Amino acid sequence: MSARDFIHNPKRGWIVPIGGAEEKYRDPQILRAFVDRCGGEKSTIAVIPTASRLEDTGPRYVELFEELGVSRAISLPFENRQDCTRKDWLQVLSEVDGVFMTGGNQLRLSTTLGGTPVARMLRDRNSEGLHVAGTSAGAAYISEHMIAFGDEGPTPHANMVQLAPGLGLTGTVLVDQHFRQRDRLGRLLTALSFNPFATGVGLDEDTAAFIAPDETIEVVGSGAITVVDPSELESSTMDSAKRSEPVSLIGIRLHILIEGGTYNTQTREARAARPTAAR
Amino acid sequence: MSARDFIHNPKRGWIVPIGGAEEKYRDPQILRAFVDRCGGEKSTIAVIPTASRLEDTGPRYVELFEELGVSRAISLPFENRQDCTRKDWLQVLSEVDGVFMTGGNQLRLSTTLGGTPVARMLRDRNSEGLHVAGTSAGAAYISEHMIAFGDEGPTPHANMVQLAPGLGLTGTVLVDQHFRQRDRLGRLLTALSFNPFATGVGLDEDTAAFIAPDETIEVVGSGAITVVDPSELESSTMDSAKRSEPVSLIGIRLHILIEGGTYNTQTREARAARPTAAR
Repeated sequence: MSARDFIHNPKRGWIVPIGGAEEKYRDPQILRAFVDRCGGEKSTIAVIPTASRLEDTGPRYVELFEELGVSRAISLPFENRQDCTRKDWLQVLSEVDGVFMTGGNQLRLSTTLGGTPVARMLRDRNSEGLHVAGTSAGAAYISEHMIAFGDEGPTPHANMVQLAPGLGLTGTVLVDQHFRQRDRLGRLLTALSFNPFATGVGLDEDTAAFIAPDETIEVVGSGAITVVDPSELESSTMDSAKRSEPVSLIGIRLHILIEGGTYNTQTREARAARPTAAR
Repeated sequence: MSARDFIHNPKRGWIVPIGGAEEKYRDPQILRAFVDRCGGEKSTIAVIPTASRLEDTGPRYVELFEELGVSRAISLPFENRQDCTRKDWLQVLSEVDGVFMTGGNQLRLSTTLGGTPVARMLRDRNSEGLHVAGTSAGAAYISEHMIAFGDEGPTPHANMVQLAPGLGLTGTVLVDQHFRQRDRLGRLLTALSFNPFATGVGLDEDTAAFIAPDETIEVVGSGAITVVDPSELESSTMDSAKRSEPVSLIGIRLHILIEGGTYNTQTREARAARPTAAR
């Protein structure tokens, strides 16, 4: 349930936030699963490396997708807001099957793409079937409310996290990445406690949430996803705590899901992966 | 243009953020204009005093609305999240012509109402014609992205303002209140610069933005509205500045509008009030 209610749209493309540091060479299962969703060998994918300040980020992902056998991969390095009105690049965006946003700084994405034809096209086309993935900063940027930056640690306090408007492909989840690696439960809890309508999704590195059109999340990757569900929150001191004081939250539900596990943000139902017969 | 694009809905009710400290006795023109929109003598209005910790806030506004001649005014003092499932109060909300949210602390509103049937009903009914006003904290809470708290001063820097998810009646504006009185241009610029898709609306005290279903804003009250339009932003250092460093923004458009002035967030057109023949 979003700040505004999202209407179920079966035509929507997959939305795939990735926790950063996804395996790229040995067994790139997340990138491969994304390519599969986009149509495998027939698929065309645009890479948006805007979050990164490194010049080779775009070309590097283009190579990775080519190695995974896509029909075409192309980097669209939007550097500034003027770039976001380039007809030739918008033409590419209007035709591809998938878009992949790299890591870096999510504020580079929101300040560069926000309010431009690129952001608008990504939303419009995703609602009509374009698949959109993002890793690290690219993952943070995907949802309606984005964690721009924050502090480490497990205990929430009001000035621990900075929220900003994101791309807005979905409003049902609030994503955080490098989750276990950077001790981010506190800042995700803080972000959720401001307005407990969304579901928190903490993504470990090399772990992705494949969000289906029906809002079911499927876990792919070597780590875990921490689902934080505040829908049964009984009480919170967020509105009365001083900014650096710890905040009390009563009634949070938490699920740790690994590869194959699922969670539906509408029904709030979590399912573990089926145990395999032998490992 | 929102993080997600808002679709023009001619059935939507008026959305009326007020900058706080509106005149209540001598010549309560803002409250009277709101009552007029709700149907005047025939109108029924629910007051939501949740933002306030004072017990008489609700009854006081009920009295004010009764003095303005409404058919019925009633206070719904949602104190906690359990209250937000009360069938009798939801029944009232489902029937009134207008809702008025008082001042106080906007985090009390978002943490108490967020994700509950009350928030959902306010969105659903506003999209079908319910008029919703809010003053001070009640104004901040109205939009998709809400300023939760922040610092004074004219120059933006990254940790100057805390955003949080709001009620989400509209995503086209980002509201700040007590604007001139508390020197809040810096924090509004900061909030906008994170993702320059929305229009900033800085409301002076005793001044309201009457937002029509077609997204035209009309100014009512004794002060001014500062409209901050970042749609032609050429460059921003928000993504690279350290958190307490000043941020450079090139290409912001600013309008100061007074009583009778209008601004349309879709066409970006501002119009001054027509000069009157004699004053």
